[in-house]
Amino acid sequence: MARNITPRKENYSQWYLDVIKAAELADYAPVRGCMVIRPTGYSIWENVQAKFDAEFKKTGHVNAYFPLLIPYSFLRKEAEHVEGFAPECATVTHAGGEELEEPYAVRPTSETVIGYMYSKWIHSWRDLPVLINQWANVMRWEKRPRLFLRTSEFLWQEGHTAHETEQEAHEETLRMLEVYRRTIENELAIPVTAGEKTAGERFPGAVATYTCEAMMSDTRALQAGTSHFFGQNFAKAFEIQYQNREGELAYCWTTSWGVSTRLIGALIMVHSDDDGLIVPPRIAPVKAAILPISKDESVAANDILPKAKELSAKLDEELGGMFTKVDTDFHARPGDRFFAHLQRGVPLRLELGEKDIATGTVRIVRRDTGEKLDVKNEAVIPTVKKLLDDIQANMFERAKAFREANTHDAGSYDELKAIIEEKGGFVRAYFGGTPEDETRIREETGATPRCILPGDNRGKCIITGQDNARLTIFAKAY
Amino acid sequence: MARNITPRKENYSQWYLDVIKAAELADYAPVRGCMVIRPTGYSIWENVQAKFDAEFKKTGHVNAYFPLLIPYSFLRKEAEHVEGFAPECATVTHAGGEELEEPYAVRPTSETVIGYMYSKWIHSWRDLPVLINQWANVMRWEKRPRLFLRTSEFLWQEGHTAHETEQEAHEETLRMLEVYRRTIENELAIPVTAGEKTAGERFPGAVATYTCEAMMSDTRALQAGTSHFFGQNFAKAFEIQYQNREGELAYCWTTSWGVSTRLIGALIMVHSDDDGLIVPPRIAPVKAAILPISKDESVAANDILPKAKELSAKLDEELGGMFTKVDTDFHARPGDRFFAHLQRGVPLRLELGEKDIATGTVRIVRRDTGEKLDVKNEAVIPTVKKLLDDIQANMFERAKAFREANTHDAGSYDELKAIIEEKGGFVRAYFGGTPEDETRIREETGATPRCILPGDNRGKCIITGQDNARLTIFAKAY
Repeated sequence: MARNITPRKENYSQWYLDVIKAAELADYAPVRGCMVIRPTGYSIWENVQAKFDAEFKKTGHVNAYFPLLIPYSFLRKEAEHVEGFAPECATVTHAGGEELEEPYAVRPTSETVIGYMYSKWIHSWRDLPVLINQWANVMRWEKRPRLFLRTSEFLWQEGHTAHETEQEAHEETLRMLEVYRRTIENELAIPVTAGEKTAGERFPGAVATYTCEAMMSDTRALQAGTSHFFGQNFAKAFEIQYQNREGELAYCWTTSWGVSTRLIGALIMVHSDDDGLIVPPRIAPVKAAILPISKDESVAANDILPKAKELSAKLDEELGGMFTKVDTDFHARPGDRFFAHLQRGVPLRLELGEKDIATGTVRIVRRDTGEKLDVKNEAVIPTVKKLLDDIQANMFERAKAFREANTHDAGSYDELKAIIEEKGGFVRAYFGGTPEDETRIREETGATPRCILPGDNRGKCIITGQDNARLTIFAKAY
Repeated sequence: MARNITPRKENYSQWYLDVIKAAELADYAPVRGCMVIRPTGYSIWENVQAKFDAEFKKTGHVNAYFPLLIPYSFLRKEAEHVEGFAPECATVTHAGGEELEEPYAVRPTSETVIGYMYSKWIHSWRDLPVLINQWANVMRWEKRPRLFLRTSEFLWQEGHTAHETEQEAHEETLRMLEVYRRTIENELAIPVTAGEKTAGERFPGAVATYTCEAMMSDTRALQAGTSHFFGQNFAKAFEIQYQNREGELAYCWTTSWGVSTRLIGALIMVHSDDDGLIVPPRIAPVKAAILPISKDESVAANDILPKAKELSAKLDEELGGMFTKVDTDFHARPGDRFFAHLQRGVPLRLELGEKDIATGTVRIVRRDTGEKLDVKNEAVIPTVKKLLDDIQANMFERAKAFREANTHDAGSYDELKAIIEEKGGFVRAYFGGTPEDETRIREETGATPRCILPGDNRGKCIITGQDNARLTIFAKAY
C-alpha cells in the first residue's frame, strides 16, 4: 500500500498529483495532454452529473446530442469566438481515407453548431424558449496539462438556450448561475462566490459572463462554473430568427452555461489532506467501508464477514442505494486496509473486530476529523446517517472558514500587490478598469479579477481612481 | 401539424426517415454523415442507457473514461484490427496551431488504448478481473449515412474486461450477450436471436464474436449488440501481463461488448406504424399524455386543466417518475393535438373533455392498437398501470409473431436464394463454409449469415455438402 503522498506544505502541485494517484482517480493517457478517468474518479463524476442533471430537469431543461466536429467556417461566423478558440482547436483534416474539402475542428464548445441547428428548428415564438443541455467531451489543446484542471480533452455539460426577450435570457443566465452555486455548495460542499466577470475575463462572444469562484486549500482561486448571456450575438451570426407575437421576424436572445470535470479538481484541492482524498458524503460513491478484521484470516472470513454483509445490506437499504462496501482484503494488514479507504476519501470506516463482536459494538471512524466512536450495534444505523450529515456540513463550514480567513481587503493597488505577494488568497478591492488594466495587474502581481461581488458595493477604483467602481475579488487562479 | 408520413409499403426507407422527422428524434448535422439527436430521441437514449447501465453494474462492472484520440501506432499493433478500422477513421493531424508529430485517429472503438492502460494497471492476479465499461462517442466515417443506423459519429457503450483464465473470459462474453438479449427483449420489447457470428462476420481481432440479431418490419435483420472474446490477441499486442497464482508472468484473456444508438433505429423499425413512432412503455420518456379538451379555450384552460394536472401528479407518483405530460396546446385543434402524441409514440393518450368531466370518466386511447376505453375516474390509475404492462407485452409478442411468420427453412442453396428473393426474412440453413463462401453468398443473394443458432443443431452444409454444419440464420441486413 503506497502511502507516499507529498505533504501540501512541501510541494502543493506534487501533493495534488499524489492524491489523484493514491485514490486512483485518473491517469495520464498516451495522448498529449489527455487523461483517463479511472473508475473511482468516474463514479464521483457520475454522482456529480446526476446532481446537476436533476437540477437542470427541474428547471425545465432537456438533454440532446450535437456533433463532435464543427466546420471551421462556423467558428469564423462570430469574430471574438473564433479568435478565442481557434488557436486551441484540434483539427480533423482526413477521414475515410480521403482529405476533407473543409477541415473540421473537434468541438472546443458548441455555440456555433447548436446555433446553426436552432436556426433550423425555431420558427415562431411558440417554439421558444428552447432549453437544451448537452453532456459531452470537448477538446482544447493544452500546452501545460494538469489532471482534471487543464486537459486537452475534458467532459462537461453545456446548456444552450434561446429566448423571446432580452430579460428572459438574462434571467436564465442568472437562474443557471444560481443552480450552479446551490449545487456546488450543497452537494460538493464547496463554498463559492457567484458574480459577474470583468470585461477581460468574458467568454469569447459573450455580452456578460457570470462565474462561481472557489478557493482551493493553497488559497488560489478556481473557476467552478460559468453562465453566459450572449445578447443577440450568436443569433445574428447564425440567423436564429423567429416570428414574434406581432408577426414580425426577430432575433432570439441566447445563453450558454457549463460545468466540467474541473469540478473534481476543485473537490480534491478544497477538501483533501496529507493522507489523501476526502469526498463529501452526498457525492461519495462509497459512503461507508465495512471491514471485518481478525488476526486469523478464517475468523474474519467465516465468522465476521456474514455480520459485515448483514450490516452493509441494512445500511444500503436505509441510505437508498449501494453506498456501502465490504472490504474482504483479508490477506492485507489492517493498517494497509484502513489506508486504502482513507486515501480514496471514503467518509466513514466501520471496523468489525473480534472485540467489537464480543462487546456488541462497531468502531466508526470519520474521514474528515479522524474521530473514532465505539457505537452499540442497535445505534449503528442512525449514527451512520447522522455522521454523514455532520461530515457534509463540517466539510462545507471548514472550507468556508478557510476562505474567510484568507480573504482580505485592499484599499490601494500597492496594498493589493503586497497582500497577493505576502499572503495570497482572495483580495477584495474596488475596480473599474479596462481589460488593459487587468492585463497589467496580472503581469505585475500574477492575480486576475475573479468576479465582481454581487450587490451595490461601489467605491473608488484602486487603478483609475474613478468613483463608482465595483467591489471585485482578485486572486491568483488555476 | 405534419402528417406526411410515407406508408411503409410505398417506400420503407422514406417511411423510416419520415417517422424520425415527425417524432423529432434526430436531424442531419452540418457535418458529413453526422446526426443531431434531438431531445425526444435523446430522452429515449437516456432511458435505454439507464436500463443497460443498471444491468452492467449488477454484473459487477464499473464505468470509466478513456481518451477520444488514439495514436495510429496503437491501431497497428493488432494486424486485423488496423485493417478493419483504419479505412473508416477520422484523423487529427493538427492541434493547438501546430502539425502533430504523429497523427491521431478519432476512436472508432477503444480496445487499443484501453489495452495500453490495462498493461499499466494490471500487475497481479489480485488485480483481476478488470470489469470496465465506457459510455462514449465514436467515429467511423460513413459513405452512405442513415440516421441512427449508420452515422459517422454515434454514441455507444463499450465494455472491456480482462481475466485470469480463458474460461472466465469466455463466460464473461456469454454473460454480457445474455444481458443484452434480456435487456433488449424486456425493455425495448424487441425479440432477438442470440448466437455466434460466422468467421466472415467477426470483429477485427476477435477469436469469437456473438450477436443479438433482430428482425425489422421489412423483414431485414439488424445487429443490435455484439460481445467479443479476444483470447489473448489484444493482451499480446499490448502486453497485458500479470503475475499468476504460481508467481509466473502470464497474458490476460480479454473481451469487449457494445450496444449503440443503433438500438433506436431498431426500435423505430420494429415497432412503428404508418402513423409514426411507437415507444415501448418501459423506455418511453412520456408514458401517458393528458389532454384537457374543449371547444372553448378558456374552459379547457380554467376548468379542465386543474383536473388534468391533478391526475398527472397522481399518476407520476404511482409510476415513480415524471412520466406523464399535460398537453396545454389549447390553440391547436384536438385532431392535431392527438396526432402530435401519436407521432411521438406516446403509449397512452388520456382525453379529458367536457363530456368526460360530466360523466366522471376519462377516455384512454392505446397507441399500439388504437383501442379506446372510457374509464371511470376511480379506475383510471389501475387501468393506466395495467395498460402500460399490456402494451409492453403486446409489442413484444407482435414483433415475435412477425419474426416467426417471416422465418423460413432452406434445405439447399437454391432454396435459400429463392426465399431471399421472393419472401425475404430470416432463412435457417446448415452452413459450414469459409469466409469466401460467405462473400459469394452475399454477392449472389444480398444476404449474409447473421448468426449461428445456439444448441446442437447440426446437419449437411448447403454450400459444401459437408456434415456437421451448424444451423445458421441468413438474411439481408442493415
